[in-house]
Amino acid sequence: MPDKNNCAPRPPMGWNSWDCYGAAVNEEQLLGNAEYMRDYLKDYGWEYVVCDIQWSEPTAVGYAYNNFAQLYMDEYSRLIPSPERFPSSADGKGFKPIADKIHAMGLKFGIHIMRGIPRQAVHRNTAIKCEGVTARDIAQQYSICPWNTDMYGIEYGRKGAQEYYDSIFQLYASWDVDYVKVDDIANTEHFPNNPYSAAKEIEMIRKAIDNCGREMVLSLSPGPAPVANAGHLCRNANMWRMTGDFWDRWDALKKMFYKCDEWYAWRAPGCWPDCDMLPLGRIQLTETDPKYKDRVTRFTKDEQKTMMALWCLFRSPLMIGAEMRLNDEFTLSLLTNRDLLDYNRFGEGAVPVRFNDKEAIWAGKDADGNTVVGLFNISEEEKEITVSLADLGLLAKKVYEATDLFTKEKSVLGADVTAVLAPHACCVLRIQ
Amino acid sequence: MPDKNNCAPRPPMGWNSWDCYGAAVNEEQLLGNAEYMRDYLKDYGWEYVVCDIQWSEPTAVGYAYNNFAQLYMDEYSRLIPSPERFPSSADGKGFKPIADKIHAMGLKFGIHIMRGIPRQAVHRNTAIKCEGVTARDIAQQYSICPWNTDMYGIEYGRKGAQEYYDSIFQLYASWDVDYVKVDDIANTEHFPNNPYSAAKEIEMIRKAIDNCGREMVLSLSPGPAPVANAGHLCRNANMWRMTGDFWDRWDALKKMFYKCDEWYAWRAPGCWPDCDMLPLGRIQLTETDPKYKDRVTRFTKDEQKTMMALWCLFRSPLMIGAEMRLNDEFTLSLLTNRDLLDYNRFGEGAVPVRFNDKEAIWAGKDADGNTVVGLFNISEEEKEITVSLADLGLLAKKVYEATDLFTKEKSVLGADVTAVLAPHACCVLRIQ
Amino acid sequence: MPDKNNCAPRPPMGWNSWDCYGAAVNEEQLLGNAEYMRDYLKDYGWEYVVCDIQWSEPTAVGYAYNNFAQLYMDEYSRLIPSPERFPSSADGKGFKPIADKIHAMGLKFGIHIMRGIPRQAVHRNTAIKCEGVTARDIAQQYSICPWNTDMYGIEYGRKGAQEYYDSIFQLYASWDVDYVKVDDIANTEHFPNNPYSAAKEIEMIRKAIDNCGREMVLSLSPGPAPVANAGHLCRNANMWRMTGDFWDRWDALKKMFYKCDEWYAWRAPGCWPDCDMLPLGRIQLTETDPKYKDRVTRFTKDEQKTMMALWCLFRSPLMIGAEMRLNDEFTLSLLTNRDLLDYNRFGEGAVPVRFNDKEAIWAGKDADGNTVVGLFNISEEEKEITVSLADLGLLAKKVYEATDLFTKEKSVLGADVTAVLAPHACCVLRIQ
Amino acid sequence: MPDKNNCAPRPPMGWNSWDCYGAAVNEEQLLGNAEYMRDYLKDYGWEYVVCDIQWSEPTAVGYAYNNFAQLYMDEYSRLIPSPERFPSSADGKGFKPIADKIHAMGLKFGIHIMRGIPRQAVHRNTAIKCEGVTARDIAQQYSICPWNTDMYGIEYGRKGAQEYYDSIFQLYASWDVDYVKVDDIANTEHFPNNPYSAAKEIEMIRKAIDNCGREMVLSLSPGPAPVANAGHLCRNANMWRMTGDFWDRWDALKKMFYKCDEWYAWRAPGCWPDCDMLPLGRIQLTETDPKYKDRVTRFTKDEQKTMMALWCLFRSPLMIGAEMRLNDEFTLSLLTNRDLLDYNRFGEGAVPVRFNDKEAIWAGKDADGNTVVGLFNISEEEKEITVSLADLGLLAKKVYEATDLFTKEKSVLGADVTAVLAPHACCVLRIQ
Repeated sequence: MPDKNNCAPRPPMGWNSWDCYGAAVNEEQLLGNAEYMRDYLKDYGWEYVVCDIQWSEPTAVGYAYNNFAQLYMDEYSRLIPSPERFPSSADGKGFKPIADKIHAMGLKFGIHIMRGIPRQAVHRNTAIKCEGVTARDIAQQYSICPWNTDMYGIEYGRKGAQEYYDSIFQLYASWDVDYVKVDDIANTEHFPNNPYSAAKEIEMIRKAIDNCGREMVLSLSPGPAPVANAGHLCRNANMWRMTGDFWDRWDALKKMFYKCDEWYAWRAPGCWPDCDMLPLGRIQLTETDPKYKDRVTRFTKDEQKTMMALWCLFRSPLMIGAEMRLNDEFTLSLLTNRDLLDYNRFGEGAVPVRFNDKEAIWAGKDADGNTVVGLFNISEEEKEITVSLADLGLLAKKVYEATDLFTKEKSVLGADVTAVLAPHACCVLRIQ
Repeated sequence: MPDKNNCAPRPPMGWNSWDCYGAAVNEEQLLGNAEYMRDYLKDYGWEYVVCDIQWSEPTAVGYAYNNFAQLYMDEYSRLIPSPERFPSSADGKGFKPIADKIHAMGLKFGIHIMRGIPRQAVHRNTAIKCEGVTARDIAQQYSICPWNTDMYGIEYGRKGAQEYYDSIFQLYASWDVDYVKVDDIANTEHFPNNPYSAAKEIEMIRKAIDNCGREMVLSLSPGPAPVANAGHLCRNANMWRMTGDFWDRWDALKKMFYKCDEWYAWRAPGCWPDCDMLPLGRIQLTETDPKYKDRVTRFTKDEQKTMMALWCLFRSPLMIGAEMRLNDEFTLSLLTNRDLLDYNRFGEGAVPVRFNDKEAIWAGKDADGNTVVGLFNISEEEKEITVSLADLGLLAKKVYEATDLFTKEKSVLGADVTAVLAPHACCVLRIQ
Repeated sequence: MPDKNNCAPRPPMGWNSWDCYGAAVNEEQLLGNAEYMRDYLKDYGWEYVVCDIQWSEPTAVGYAYNNFAQLYMDEYSRLIPSPERFPSSADGKGFKPIADKIHAMGLKFGIHIMRGIPRQAVHRNTAIKCEGVTARDIAQQYSICPWNTDMYGIEYGRKGAQEYYDSIFQLYASWDVDYVKVDDIANTEHFPNNPYSAAKEIEMIRKAIDNCGREMVLSLSPGPAPVANAGHLCRNANMWRMTGDFWDRWDALKKMFYKCDEWYAWRAPGCWPDCDMLPLGRIQLTETDPKYKDRVTRFTKDEQKTMMALWCLFRSPLMIGAEMRLNDEFTLSLLTNRDLLDYNRFGEGAVPVRFNDKEAIWAGKDADGNTVVGLFNISEEEKEITVSLADLGLLAKKVYEATDLFTKEKSVLGADVTAVLAPHACCVLRIQ
Repeated sequence: MPDKNNCAPRPPMGWNSWDCYGAAVNEEQLLGNAEYMRDYLKDYGWEYVVCDIQWSEPTAVGYAYNNFAQLYMDEYSRLIPSPERFPSSADGKGFKPIADKIHAMGLKFGIHIMRGIPRQAVHRNTAIKCEGVTARDIAQQYSICPWNTDMYGIEYGRKGAQEYYDSIFQLYASWDVDYVKVDDIANTEHFPNNPYSAAKEIEMIRKAIDNCGREMVLSLSPGPAPVANAGHLCRNANMWRMTGDFWDRWDALKKMFYKCDEWYAWRAPGCWPDCDMLPLGRIQLTETDPKYKDRVTRFTKDEQKTMMALWCLFRSPLMIGAEMRLNDEFTLSLLTNRDLLDYNRFGEGAVPVRFNDKEAIWAGKDADGNTVVGLFNISEEEKEITVSLADLGLLAKKVYEATDLFTKEKSVLGADVTAVLAPHACCVLRIQ
């Protein structure tokens, strides 16, 4: 059995189409963002280009789904790209032409799927790639997603269940997919009392990837993944969401500090609790609700820095949400902060030295053995945050130099690390 | 607006096909039991013959459903009887021929439906009887039943929603249906946190019956109906289940005493909390699981009497579960105990004078103003149960005569009513 | 056994000290309000004067309790009045002198108690009126109230448990108490998983009253009493709270419509679901928190009428919360609306003919057989509310005259009863 | 601030009096077991001798508490040992003489406390070591333990709160205590809806230890500690219970596999999730309930090995429950299995390579870099368990020798590690 950790020794970094294009991304947008990544970001470690949900749905418009919409499907009940939106996929080529182009840029290609088998396959009772079995036979009849009508879950143990999952990953392998984000699977407690759990579907998917002959990062959504399942997630997936969908709201960002505190011990090569995508820059371009439509992130600059600093110190996977081609200078500066990104890639996962509802202090060692410390004011008032060198495990007697990883300014430290911070602001220092 | 209480001034009494034939009852069985009722039971107040679930499903066999099975449906997405099972329904006649025969016997005819619209209609996106609207438009995409795959719920407020319900009750009115048992509706708390409630569907159905031009008893299943909804149920339905499916097990029978204690104040003409069907005699004839298959009720004679006594003193609707043509003498004797049945029909609903986990005493007045009292030993040991005449609201000084409603024996009472009862046994006395 | 329903054939009406004096009421205030009741209200049915919580606590000030404060207690671990606050109680006279004065006014006297035995008795291990048993022996060690430190619950079945409750009700009988409000007992689900229930304490108190030789109304607080316990409450108490403490806030008043809809079937002579006290006029005179201190009710006039109308149509017990001696004219007019109060006393409990989150219609018959209907606009917008005479069970053809029970204006009705109502307003009509 | 992790670089190992003596252990038993440890176990790493609950209670007998019993207490409301049970503690010497003797044996001494302040201090309102403050002022009036009546919780933020905790740890420091097991603190969700949390009490205790001038291991009980609090526990304590009290029952042992899977990532020097005491050998000697009284562990030999293997591979703290002086040979052999104990002390915490409800495989590296693997059959049937060398991260091509850590037998491995195991049995191999 191949080692599933090999493909994600570091937290995966890339771009995902959801935050800017919802369910409606198309080939031009995918490739345009890939080119931007190649030109501006690849050198900093960014590499995945991920096509999010509903690429089989020809009529998808924005962020709301068309219930019961007709999806493109092959003769084995496998969803395939809509040629209206992905012209190169026509004639059975699937995502292979797009993957080829992205690979040619030196980047990697990912797709989103929903767990299960299309409801349309079940109600039409179409064939699957397993003799004598049809879609109806493997569908878990009461396992539906609470926010999307495309699929039924698959019942573990039924003849054809593993075979169906095998068949879809064979298809993805034939397309040269590098990364699969599986949705409606990390938190499936939809039914009270006798909740259906997707644990067995996670295991079937793990096995299907192991069987398919190609390494693929396995990312599970949406959260909150139950922390009691952490061991199971570590054994089967490469990354999983700690929360529900993350958007540009302070309460969600503050809550992420709590989730990082719950999960930090579980980070390991190949195993990455996921803070979710970065809603930076220009987002929700296809949104139809005027309240949210095509906006610049609602996060202040301080909040954006706080987000980048927490994600990087925590070593979360990093997935850009912006339409990158519309990045302003500040957004780009955050995505090319080499010090922070290198910490994310090569540092030892920082730990919360102090944490309460007013402040958080995370500290760890970078690849060179220097201590990096982040001071976060998560209160609503300006606040001085101080921590002693001793509490960071440093010798109190020595003289240390500190570099601010955002401003690059240097300073000499006394016995304490201290910063006066505006509400929602942070300061990240490398101590040498 | 017609008064929905008119059609059920007393607790409905009849026979229902579920306990003996599951999802697979057919025309011969319906009519055969109707004839039995006409010949042996009608004179005691029994009148409804109810065809339970899945009469549109040609391949139904026993008590398990064939997931995603093809159902018979008309051009307006309305389910119609399977002619394989109900030959007289062919050529668009529906249940009218059967209803006619049952009416000719001086009895009434009822059917079972699931709330909602067939999933097959939604996925095929067929027409409904409302211009410009199709099945997909009115389906509540996440509202499914947790034990049967036939339907999606209907979303209140959508164009066509009320019209669909109107259209099915017009159909039933054209068949001369007298009683409709709507399923998956009295307890729909399937989703945690943000539970979908079927309250609006109950209201649409109420309105559809009021609109259809024919009185029909509205029965809601399955329970437990939340007691906090009691007011809403009283305003909209005629009967509703207090528990999940009731079968022939002592723990379920004992639990019914608790439910009756929770609900007794809610009985009123036209409003009947329902103890569920009576699993007496020969039941589960079509069951395929050998553990349950074609058996005589597991209830002892004492337990059967306890069930009949509680149901009648409580004034629950009474629906026989047996294949009546196979009744033995004892079963028939229970179904023709005129004293008890008359109490059910004409008495004042009894109330629990005493109730704890060992004993229950229910008392009320019959149509002649005589006190009727039931003493129930619900413990696991023989027990003497005593209650004073004063606690029954009777004058301690007077001499009363008591008649046992099972044995018909008479006795003269002292100051107390008392009985030594075996575990699970009861004694019901009329005091004159 | 005496019939516990005898003492409350109608919903009890009176005054309670909590809303105006909190834990700190004194003898002068009790008697002063009693005199007011005698002079202005007795003729309308008002009769109980109830001394609320902590009359044993000499240092009580306002609405917050002094944790672990020393309480006055007799040699049998029974709490007795603090002579600092109730001077006539000195020398072992207890509440007898006050009760005598109130009885002399033609009124009745009530007191508040907490279930259980004083914690101070348990920790000092003092005697109780049961040979060989001390306070420690009967205390349920983990049963504490979540908002007051005075007591431990009493463990049913322990030697001395019933005897202790008997002993306190003997004391109250010797004081000629007519009404006991027992607190921390109607909703005691403090502990998760294995919740302690006070059901057995309710039964012990019932028995203690039955044993004490004097009729007393038994009132249980605080709510929400679980509706599943309704049968038990009916068998043991005379009134019980449907909600937590009710204060002068619209959301609480609106919520009461939901609770009345949950409970209305349970009203019966001797059994009264309780909407809680009426926070009218001048209240919270002893409150120390400036936010709430000594204010006129925050309810608008429309809201006050809505409250009075709902309480009376529902037939709730009525307990005035105001310092009545400071009543203004409007407040007094509400408390002397003979039509409404007579409905409360002599009418048939009205039922909700219609109820949703925008409007409520309650209707019933008064003692003369006239229909009384209340139309309530519980939305935030002006609203026309209409109901047909037929839906009120009246003949559509007849000509009816309606009297507004607030304005006393008369009108002639057509086929419908209709009113245009401001938000939170109501209209109550008697139809002749 | 001292580094709280210093005192527990490895999982603490020792003996605790609860499993054999309940609430009633005495000086002779403590010292007798200490001598046994010195003579037979010290050489294997065992070092702590811990006196469990209620050492202030003179009348304690077995495992049930005497509710509201009088406890020994000093002038500052601090509990002190009962001289009836610990004679050397008389005259204000406290546990110092016992600690001295245990230290003289080369061992360490621990005590148990309940969080909070004695209820008797609060009800007597005695002094604490903080001017102007008394016991009543700092008690959290509604924070009680659900299974013991001794204490009230302490309210963070009140004047005297931190001072009280400081004062008790000063006392323990003066006694030379090395280890404190604080009870009723790791899981305090007693109240629904608005649960009281002991998090602030944990922080006060942490600070009190840091202030007291002596290193002490901080152990928190009982579990289940909520896994969402893991970060907080790591920052404040040295060990904490993952479950409720663990006794010699298979279901509890099987459940521990699930808990270990939930918690394994959180092990770190100074931070040890705790599987609880080892109920081996002769236990419950003072139990008065004949069902449990003075018995040999109910665990089979296979189960005892499974328990030892899981605890050691997981690197749980190890606390012996037996009256060690009555150990039989088998029990002693488990407590002196140097290979397993060395893994517990010096290995890298193993991780679950596979885990489902039938089998568990844990693997890690010992101090010499050898892979150690445990195969556990947690099903009810004999079972062959197999794992490939590759899945253990070993080269498939090499030839490895395996040593069974229970039998010491050696074997040569092929491509797989495999064992046929009886139900509940395990096999632990060191692979070289």
